[in-house]
Amino acid sequence: MKKKRCVCGVDLGGTKTATALIDFHGNIHHKTKKKTDVSDGAKSVMAGIVGMIRDEFEYADNHEMIVNAIGMGSGGCIDKDKGVVSYATSVFPGWIGMPIKDILQKEFDVPVSIDNDGKVTALGEGWIGAAKGVENFVCIAVGTGVTSGIVISGELYRGYGGYAGEIGHASIEMNGVECDCGNYGCLDAYVGASSIIKRVTKALKKGVKTKINDKIKGDLANVTPQTVFESAQEGDEFALSVLAEVSKYLGVGIANLINTLNPELIVLSGGLAQAGELLLKFVRPAVKQRINVQATGQINIKLTKLGEEAGVIGAAALAITNMEQS
Amino acid sequence: MKKKRCVCGVDLGGTKTATALIDFHGNIHHKTKKKTDVSDGAKSVMAGIVGMIRDEFEYADNHEMIVNAIGMGSGGCIDKDKGVVSYATSVFPGWIGMPIKDILQKEFDVPVSIDNDGKVTALGEGWIGAAKGVENFVCIAVGTGVTSGIVISGELYRGYGGYAGEIGHASIEMNGVECDCGNYGCLDAYVGASSIIKRVTKALKKGVKTKINDKIKGDLANVTPQTVFESAQEGDEFALSVLAEVSKYLGVGIANLINTLNPELIVLSGGLAQAGELLLKFVRPAVKQRINVQATGQINIKLTKLGEEAGVIGAAALAITNMEQS
Repeated sequence: MKKKRCVCGVDLGGTKTATALIDFHGNIHHKTKKKTDVSDGAKSVMAGIVGMIRDEFEYADNHEMIVNAIGMGSGGCIDKDKGVVSYATSVFPGWIGMPIKDILQKEFDVPVSIDNDGKVTALGEGWIGAAKGVENFVCIAVGTGVTSGIVISGELYRGYGGYAGEIGHASIEMNGVECDCGNYGCLDAYVGASSIIKRVTKALKKGVKTKINDKIKGDLANVTPQTVFESAQEGDEFALSVLAEVSKYLGVGIANLINTLNPELIVLSGGLAQAGELLLKFVRPAVKQRINVQATGQINIKLTKLGEEAGVIGAAALAITNMEQS
Repeated sequence: MKKKRCVCGVDLGGTKTATALIDFHGNIHHKTKKKTDVSDGAKSVMAGIVGMIRDEFEYADNHEMIVNAIGMGSGGCIDKDKGVVSYATSVFPGWIGMPIKDILQKEFDVPVSIDNDGKVTALGEGWIGAAKGVENFVCIAVGTGVTSGIVISGELYRGYGGYAGEIGHASIEMNGVECDCGNYGCLDAYVGASSIIKRVTKALKKGVKTKINDKIKGDLANVTPQTVFESAQEGDEFALSVLAEVSKYLGVGIANLINTLNPELIVLSGGLAQAGELLLKFVRPAVKQRINVQATGQINIKLTKLGEEAGVIGAAALAITNMEQS
């Protein structure tokens, strides 16, 4: 019997790592998710990834599948030709210089492609997601931080140092809080997960009445953006006000992006997209208020169609695109 | 004798209009400049442009030259296929809907190309200016307002509604002053000519000691960015402080652009570029302070090589590019 061809997609995030076996139509045949523990150090994280991929190869072998390539998305700047991390923030010590491509290619003997996770996610949305068929779009991922992938004329735009799309480090308040990147008032600081958690924790300490209290079972350490989104979806007033505030800030970032690039479509992905239609309800007017629609043309903002799978599907899209081009 | 082939470049600005006869190597053979009086209304401005072009054609005829095409840069959004102004701000009433291409083609019977002035200027810098040979760059023009032309893979990036590059309307202070465009804290409001004039006039009224006083001969209406730049170049402390402040704001806008697009090169043009090397001296550190150079790679910021001629040369570049493509 002929084995089914597939690729292995790897999504390395700040809190969890996912691997999946994905066929050439984008169907996921197997998936594994594990906690990423960056405090264990880069070598240990890399060893964990190798182990997860080995398990996927074994699964493929046992289920009449064959893995043709590996694609991976990672935080930081990636030298995509060398497959090496050229820059990462201090939250992931030891990741800069990691020769990911060499390690994986030696280990698995298939072509390996790596790029920044924001860019990879955009590839996925363009392949089989919310941006399918659109030539010029930006996919914004809001999770632990904010990143994006810019697609121009159907191709990923990477910029001079591979840093294009790092809109999380564009300033929306020039005298705002100082960021690790050197800038002040970065979008990251207003809409990233930790800013949401900080805002909610502070209010809970002050005794605000909200359904979030029920969800965290009295332990402030249990506050996550998800507890906020769920409460908002249940109509909780405080949670809704938090989402409205985050959307207001995100609206500034998106409006700036539109005034700079005027893309045909903006796709929202990452953890924040779990807030669903409610997010769009707040974000769309926040953006429109700051845009001259007469000049820009329609403003099209959509939610990811790939949800949590965006990372692995994008990684697969990267692997397949590179196979087709080589 | 064989006539020398050239094109007519038209640069319509908020304060002056320039026309020029330019050959296919970018040499200017004749040039005219007149005041633009938008208060006379759009029809009158258009009639003035037609008259200026007619004079250029006449000059060509009398000097063994032949005009093969007309290229023009104008403020506002241009539907480049129809050659119609699709959007303009309220400072130029009646300009929206102006069928520039039809009018000029009927009048002069040569191919006519029109685009936004910021975009056209970028084309000029890429053709024979500071960005010659660079595939990915942004040319920022700071004059009455702030606009830019984004070149990606050697081609002008226009965006969905032709509004790409309008970084003057990206916010650097989300709660800053309200702009006509609907946004708040637009870069325009901090670095445009009128903001410089307003800042200086206010200080002069308060009795600040500066060489600007000598240049304006006691009349505050004579304050222009040029009087400020000249005084700064003469070492005047107050003028230098104004230039430093403007550069600080511009630095935020450029840093945001780098974090979004990470271009290989940024070219500064427009009236502000007349401040020369002094401008770079202030702008470069203002940008670098807000950028993670390790991640973005080198930050390359240059002054226009075309100076005041950037507009007409860019318009000629547009006309010639379109002749080659048709």
